[in-house]
Order: sequence, then C-alpha cells, then structure tokens
Amino acid sequence: MKLLKGIMPPIATPFINDELALDRLERNFLKWNKTDLSGYVVMGSNGESVFLQRHEKLKLVEAAKKYMSSEKLLIAGTGSDSIKETIALSNDCAERGADFVLVLTPSFYKSEMKPSAYIKYFNAVADNIKVPLIIYNVPKFTGVDIEAETVAKLAEHKNIIGMKNSSENVRQTTEIIDQTPNDFVTIIGTASVLYPGIAAGASGGILALANIAPDECVQIQKLTEAGKHKEAVELQKRMLPVNKAVTAKYGVAGLKAAMEMTGYFGGEPRSPLSSLNNNDKENLKQILINAGLIS
Amino acid sequence: MKLLKGIMPPIATPFINDELALDRLERNFLKWNKTDLSGYVVMGSNGESVFLQRHEKLKLVEAAKKYMSSEKLLIAGTGSDSIKETIALSNDCAERGADFVLVLTPSFYKSEMKPSAYIKYFNAVADNIKVPLIIYNVPKFTGVDIEAETVAKLAEHKNIIGMKNSSENVRQTTEIIDQTPNDFVTIIGTASVLYPGIAAGASGGILALANIAPDECVQIQKLTEAGKHKEAVELQKRMLPVNKAVTAKYGVAGLKAAMEMTGYFGGEPRSPLSSLNNNDKENLKQILINAGLIS
Amino acid sequence: MKLLKGIMPPIATPFINDELALDRLERNFLKWNKTDLSGYVVMGSNGESVFLQRHEKLKLVEAAKKYMSSEKLLIAGTGSDSIKETIALSNDCAERGADFVLVLTPSFYKSEMKPSAYIKYFNAVADNIKVPLIIYNVPKFTGVDIEAETVAKLAEHKNIIGMKNSSENVRQTTEIIDQTPNDFVTIIGTASVLYPGIAAGASGGILALANIAPDECVQIQKLTEAGKHKEAVELQKRMLPVNKAVTAKYGVAGLKAAMEMTGYFGGEPRSPLSSLNNNDKENLKQILINAGLIS
Amino acid sequence: MKLLKGIMPPIATPFINDELALDRLERNFLKWNKTDLSGYVVMGSNGESVFLQRHEKLKLVEAAKKYMSSEKLLIAGTGSDSIKETIALSNDCAERGADFVLVLTPSFYKSEMKPSAYIKYFNAVADNIKVPLIIYNVPKFTGVDIEAETVAKLAEHKNIIGMKNSSENVRQTTEIIDQTPNDFVTIIGTASVLYPGIAAGASGGILALANIAPDECVQIQKLTEAGKHKEAVELQKRMLPVNKAVTAKYGVAGLKAAMEMTGYFGGEPRSPLSSLNNNDKENLKQILINAGLIS
Repeated sequence: MKLLKGIMPPIATPFINDELALDRLERNFLKWNKTDLSGYVVMGSNGESVFLQRHEKLKLVEAAKKYMSSEKLLIAGTGSDSIKETIALSNDCAERGADFVLVLTPSFYKSEMKPSAYIKYFNAVADNIKVPLIIYNVPKFTGVDIEAETVAKLAEHKNIIGMKNSSENVRQTTEIIDQTPNDFVTIIGTASVLYPGIAAGASGGILALANIAPDECVQIQKLTEAGKHKEAVELQKRMLPVNKAVTAKYGVAGLKAAMEMTGYFGGEPRSPLSSLNNNDKENLKQILINAGLIS
Repeated sequence: MKLLKGIMPPIATPFINDELALDRLERNFLKWNKTDLSGYVVMGSNGESVFLQRHEKLKLVEAAKKYMSSEKLLIAGTGSDSIKETIALSNDCAERGADFVLVLTPSFYKSEMKPSAYIKYFNAVADNIKVPLIIYNVPKFTGVDIEAETVAKLAEHKNIIGMKNSSENVRQTTEIIDQTPNDFVTIIGTASVLYPGIAAGASGGILALANIAPDECVQIQKLTEAGKHKEAVELQKRMLPVNKAVTAKYGVAGLKAAMEMTGYFGGEPRSPLSSLNNNDKENLKQILINAGLIS
Repeated sequence: MKLLKGIMPPIATPFINDELALDRLERNFLKWNKTDLSGYVVMGSNGESVFLQRHEKLKLVEAAKKYMSSEKLLIAGTGSDSIKETIALSNDCAERGADFVLVLTPSFYKSEMKPSAYIKYFNAVADNIKVPLIIYNVPKFTGVDIEAETVAKLAEHKNIIGMKNSSENVRQTTEIIDQTPNDFVTIIGTASVLYPGIAAGASGGILALANIAPDECVQIQKLTEAGKHKEAVELQKRMLPVNKAVTAKYGVAGLKAAMEMTGYFGGEPRSPLSSLNNNDKENLKQILINAGLIS
Repeated sequence: MKLLKGIMPPIATPFINDELALDRLERNFLKWNKTDLSGYVVMGSNGESVFLQRHEKLKLVEAAKKYMSSEKLLIAGTGSDSIKETIALSNDCAERGADFVLVLTPSFYKSEMKPSAYIKYFNAVADNIKVPLIIYNVPKFTGVDIEAETVAKLAEHKNIIGMKNSSENVRQTTEIIDQTPNDFVTIIGTASVLYPGIAAGASGGILALANIAPDECVQIQKLTEAGKHKEAVELQKRMLPVNKAVTAKYGVAGLKAAMEMTGYFGGEPRSPLSSLNNNDKENLKQILINAGLIS
C-alpha cells in the first residue's frame, strides 16, 4: 500500500457547456505533477461529484490516472447513502486505478445517523471493497457529524485506514488523533485549519486550496513539521482570505475562477451552479494579488 | 393527464435480509387498492430511495405498476443533485409507467442553493422529461428550503405542475397556494399538518401515515373539504401521535414495524438503519391501540 | 380572573432619540381601544423588552395601564433565565396592574433546557407570583423549543393557565391543544399561522400584526369561529405579506415604519437596531397598499 | 492598565439551597491565588450569570475582590442586549474593582445582529464605561456569531481592547489575530482549543477547565510559547476529555461536581439546572482519574 500522507487537491472537474471536458485536465496535471503534492482526489466535494452521472465518474478516474504522475496517489470519492452502490462504485474505481476510496458519511436520514448506523455502514463497505477506505466527514454539506468515539471504533477495521475531516473543528480533529492508533491517518479537509491540524498531529490535507496554491499548502505542512511554527502561522494567515474566497465565500465557482487566474483550466461550474459575476471576479483577483499568488 | 389530487402513501420498500423483496408488495397493494387512496409514490423519502441502486429503482417502479390498481396514480421519486441523472431516471421511470415524477430540491452545496439555482435546476429537468414534474421540498432531510416566491416562478413552466411540501411550515404552504395559479397542485408532505394544509387549500397529501392508516388520512381531507372542520380536527388530533411514531420518533423502522402490526408486510429497514427494539415496539403498539388503529 | 381570549398586540415601545417616549402611547391606545382587541401585551418580543432597563419596564406597565381601556386585558412580559428576577419583576408588574404575565422559556444553557428544567423553572415561578402565568415559546429568538408533553405537565399547575406559541409549527400547537385541559389557553404568537391555529382550537393571538391591522386579525378569528373558513383563509392570505414585512423581513424597524404609515406613532427602534432605509420603506408601503391597509 | 494575558477561570458561583453562598469562595481563591492564573472572571457563562439578580452580581464582584490576590486581574461579565443596562452594570462593577468588563454580543433579535448592529452596540458601550471592554463571543449560548471583519472594525476603538472567543472555530480566531492590531488581545474561551489558539497567537484563555485544572491550563500556554509543541499537544489531548466533561457533556453541574472532587467548593447549580446523578458523577470521577487530576 502506498503511504497516505501530505497534501492533495480534490481536483476541480472540467466542464465546457455543461459537458465533461476531461482533456482539459492535461494542462492542470502537468503543473500539479511538478509540485510536491502527494496525490489527487477525484469526485471530492469540490469536484462537483454530485453533478456527475455514474459513467462520467468512471471516465474521470480514467482521465486522472492517464494524466497524473505515477508515483502520486489517486483517491476516488465514492460514498453515497447506499451501501451496495458505494461498494460497487468503489470497486469500479479501484479497477481503474484508485489507490484509496474516500467515503462520505451517509446523511439522508439525519436523525437516524447515530454511531451504530455509521458503524454498520462503514464496516459493511470496508468488508467488501478492494482498496482501503478513508472516512469522509463534511458537516457543512451533509448536515451530520461523526464523533471521535465512533471513528475510534471504525479504526479497528483493518481496511478503514483514515479519515478526512472537513469540519473546521480542531477539537474534534485532535480527539480523533488522540483516540485512534498511530497508523490511522487523519487528514485535514479544509485549508482554513491546516496549520492547527498538522500541529495537532494530522498527516496531511485534502484541500480545495491545493488546486491553486499547491506549494503554499505543502509549505505549511513542512514548516510545521520542521518546528517552524511562527513561519507556518504566517503562511496560514496569508492563505486564509484566499481559502475563504475559493470555498465559503464563492464556492466551486470561485475555485474555478481562481484556477483561470492562476494558470490552470477552471472553466465554469456545472448547472445549476453559476459562474461568478464580474464584480466577484474582480474581488477574487484582488484577494489573489494580496496573497501574492498572482501579480 | 390524470388528475393529481387526494391521498397517496410514499410506499415502504420491502427488504428481506437487506435484499429487495418486491413480491411482498402484492399483499400491501391488495389492501391499499381497496381504499380511496388516489395513488402511490415509489422512491419517496420513506421508501428508502437513497439506499436503492439504480436498477433496483426501476424494478420497484415495475413492481408497483404490476400490483397497483390501474385507475390510481403512480408517482416516482427521481431527484438527485445531478440534472442529467434526474432527467435520465425520470424518463426511465416514465417508460415503466410513472404518471408523474417527484423531484427533490438539489441540496449538496447548501449555501449555493439560492432561488436562481432552483430555477435553473427545475426548468432544465422539466424541459427534458416526458411526464409532469412535482417539486419536492423536505428540509429535515435536505437541509435546504425553497421559498414560495421561487415556487411561483417555477409554476410558470407548463411541465412543473405541483409541489409536495414536507415541511411542517403551514405559513409557507399557504404562501405557495396563494402565489401559484389555481391549477398548480400543492400537496402536503406530512400528516402532522394535513388538516391545516387542506383547510388552506392544498389538493392532497403524500403521507407516510397513509401506508398504515389510509382511510383516516382520506377522511381528514374529505371532512375538511365538506366543511366539517371540528370532526376533521378531532381526527387530525387522533392521528398526531401515530404519525409522530412512524416519522420523527421512530423513523422508517417505526413505519415498517407499524405496518407489521396493522396487517401489511413491513419487514426491516435496509442497513445501515436498524429495526426497532422490543421496548420501542411495545410503545409503538400502545400508540396504535390508543389511536384505535388496532385493538 | 378576566377571560383570556381574542387578539392582542404586543405593543411597540415608543422611543425618541433612544429614550422612552411613553406619552406617544396615548395616540396609539386611542385607536386600539376602539377596536375589538381583547387586550395588550407590554414587554413582548416586538416591544424591544430586551433593550429596556428594569425601571423602564415598570414605567411602561404604568403607561399602558393609564392609556388602555379598563375592560381590556394587560399582559406583561417578565421572563428571564433567573427565577428570582422573573418572580420579582412579575410581582412588580402585577402591582402596577398587569392581569397576567407572559414568561419566556429560559434559554441560555440551551443543551440543558430539557423538560425537567422547564418544569422546575415554570413551577417555581408560578408558585410565587400573584397573577396567572402564560408560558411563552419563541424558538426563533431563544433557540430552544418546548414540547407539548412538557406543556401538558405544566398545565397541571393551577397558576399556569396558558401558552403563547410563537413558533410557526402548527403541528406543535395542535398537540398542545390536544394534550392540555380545555381551560388551558393556547394563544397563537405569529399572524403567519393565525387561521390554522384558530381552526385547530386556539383561543386567540398575540400578534405583531395586530399593532397595525387589529381589525383584520380580529376578523380572521371571528370568521374561523363562525365556520366561514374560506373567507378566513382569504383574509389570512391577504395578511401574509404584511405580516412577513413587519416580522421576518424587516423586524421591529419594519413594524414601527408600518405604524407610521397606518396612523400610529411608531418612531425608531432602539439602538443597536436601525431604522429602515428609504428603499425598504418604499417596498413596505407598497406591501401595505397591496393588502388594502393604506391607499 | 494591567496587562491582559494568561489563563483565567470564569469562576463558578457558589450556591447553597439556591441562595448565594459567597463565603464559600474563600477556600477556592486560597487555592487559585497560589497558582499562575493571571486573573479571574466573575459572571461568565460558567458562573451562571443569567441566574443572578443585579444586586447579587454586585455582591459577587465584591466577594471576588475581597478574596482574590491583589496582583491578579478581575474581569466582570456585564453584557446584555440593553446598551443602557450594560453601561450601568459595567460602571457599577468597575467601581467595585473590576479591571475589565467582558461584554456578550447582543443576540435576542438574531437575524438583525448584522455587523452594523454589533458596531453600534459595542461602540456605544465602550464610549460610556470606565474600564476597558472585552468582546465576548459564545455562539453555542447566544446563537449568533461575530465575524473577524467586524471585530477588526471594533478594535479601532481605544476602549475595546480584546475579545474572548468561546467558539471552537480556530479559523475564526486566527482571522481575528490576523486582522486586529498587535495590541488587541485575543483570548481563547474554551480549553478544547487552547493549544491551537495559543499556537496561532492568542494571548491567553478564559476557561471553565481552569477552575479545576489551573496548572495544566497554564502549562499548555507556557509549553506552546516556549516552542515545546509536542508536549503542549500531549497535555492538550490529556485535558480534552476532562474539558468536555465539565462543559459540553455535563455543563455547569459537571463543573461543580468536578470542583468537589478536586478539592474546591462546587455545590449545586442554581435551579432550574440540576445536579449530576450518581452514575454521571461516577463517570466524571473516572475521567478525572484517567487524566491524572485525582487519584
């Protein structure tokens, strides 16, 4: 098994006129492959996975595999509420080269999503897939949250090897690190708390921001792990407004516009999302300039 | 087009050992067909639609079509965040006999689900499907809500013919009735507010409770429309504890247990949901007895 | 004890330059006294009670008592998290002429506000005050909610005689009516669900809207109780946009601006609230015109 | 002005039979005074401030002043929605020896609590009080949150000298540190994120946990500031279960029970809160043992 560590972007999925435009990934991967990114995530939240049909998802895995540097990791987001479908899609992605699958917490029946439901769900999926499973917690999109105690129980399964926590809750992340074995991998899911997460012992980050600022994200981790906390905090602060712009403030449309401004193919988000208007684009550009990402 | 009106159950989907057991629907439809229910919904929230794979959904439509009385309506729940998949699934269901499709509000990117996103989404789906579309709003599961003003704009599309509102918000339902044309159909989505919804002018209800108490649900509508408000309120009050038990309190597991107690096949919810424990079953039974549904 | 029934406005508190201007109440009461309003509430949520110092509250009670018609009811909002202070303030208001006190659910320690806490709180207050207590539930401001089962237990106390429910949840209101004795008074707390609340058996309403449209609010109750449901629904629909404008949309500032437009003294909300800007005032005026409240 | 820095407990307020028992503070202060705590907060959230009458609050300030070591700081929680009352109470506390006041964000009209309202509120209070003001943000109790941009604007007022952030949101805390001048004091309000907060540049903590584990809290700050991050993280992890027990899990009742177990006077929370049952006390004791706070 490849070592799961470091910074990975949940890559933006390219569309032209609302149709997949996978060839546009080539340019992006050419740039990303040269960085110290440790791998890539396809069908993450920022990849507009929920707007893809099943056959499109498989094509996306194949395209990523084709363009990515072979020594880097490939993680596929495959989770849905259906255990059967999650297993089937995970195995289809594994056959196409995914090294790991990132499996969202089930969430439709919110009040029923108690620890026992998570344990049934993740164990059933992990029992039946050919690659290791990473739990994916993202309360702002799912409306549910998974407690450290539940993660600790799931960590006992040999095929559940880590968790991506996209909650900004550093307390929860610290609890997970504390309550799981040393070889369980905790991954920060939002650059807004990358520094405190790494400082608390997380192994890396899957970060929308890494689509446009891979070097800066990698650097925050390296500085922290080298004990250079003050410099890490300064870089974290410099990235905060950028990260907010490409996530909470402007969403996927903001991320894609920022990719266009930083030399990547971004394109437009898929319908029903809308592109940024010119005013928002101007604000975004200024934020990138202020952070020194463009001039 | 068949007239969309009256009470319909979002039918529970039968499983045995976590596998679809569609033949068990026969007994249930035999009973339901004899009532004044106006139709059926497959793949509703209470039908555990999120736990079904695509091919299972199509089999479910076929099974319902096979067992149901031909003069009743068939509505299929087909919505997901993906416009393309929603169109494809809707048309596949229409080919198998669905008279209408019930399309959930997209909800993953919650903060992006502004009126403009709903308008793009529903118009795009409605433009491309072969049967009329009913908007489905269920904030407790999706974490998003759609305003009456947005519904009013969508009602201008000739293929968007109604809305199921599963919010308990009667103010919102009244606004929708007020702001849409007379031929736009507003359907109450939870028996907890069936009486006030019908009194405000709604055309019917798609109600989990109608799986086990079809006659009582039909009666609440009939009494209200006949001006017998006091009797309607009394029946509404009698049904409140039952409805709470098979929805908010015990969820799908409670609905299925109640079906077993009232002469239907219920079976167990699909994993990761769990069946009721014996104590909860006992409480549920007492609630059904108190309401006069069983003795 | 006076009969608690009918429509009452939680009166807006007049300020000039952020100071109490109680003499301005005279004009308002002259108009209200001529209507079929059954009484008045001072220090309600819409009365900016939280911005008043203790001595100002007592002056407000005295002013209301001075200007109001003696055959109408006076209710004072006196609740805070402190049991001792709630008792003290309630008795001070009773001495100044309040017929009832309206006591907000305690809410600061939200996760601790379980049924047992509500029961301790309200029984302790009710035991020690000289006038009857009305429970006040307003989740949008307090962030907590009280279940019908808890209200039913509190209704056993002979000095807890009713509840104002400002939640729009008609299901909950119906449950409260169903689970409490016939002489327990359920009062609708928001005009947005006045019709369905009265239809379900509520005894009246304490409604921001009644500050500016007392006759229409009274009429909705009368029509409903006379069995003229269709006319009641039509009037309810006509009032919905107005009610939204003076509550959810524009808040207290909107209510006060609407009072100015309808012949009452409104004035400005107290700091830190702000008055409406001109654009919002223009919108508000149009809403009042559309509803036929002004021409 | 005294230097605002370091760890301070929001002290638990002692009650016996629901009455203030201020003499019981003597024992607690004797222990606390010997530690490196930099000061004390009275009428904080954990001090059950909302259950105190005004005259009780003033007595509490006097009692703290009497028992506390004179070189330590005294901060009084004085905020309420009323600007006038907040000013009056703040000045009354200042006269009795409070060095600073801690002023809660106003919160009743949640949807109106926009940046402009906070700016009006805090500037008006700061203009009229005799001691410096610390903004107090605690979303879990108030249901509102204040953005870094707003805090940055308020930091321009010379009498607004810091903020206590009791949100666990480390991203927000980092933004506040980044956007305010170097002499603006950011204080962590929950021990659950003490380490990441100090690592990001916060000046100290006002922490429920500091009531029972003052040395450990002080040590986390010292280790972090000395660059001993690994040891700080280990101590942070060891304290997490204890902190959860005396806040989110068992609330004020848990804090008071833990005080009894660690040699302080705790007593019972004031009604309507309830003491822990024996089972919860046993669990709590085990948590304290596991963390090495008692044996």
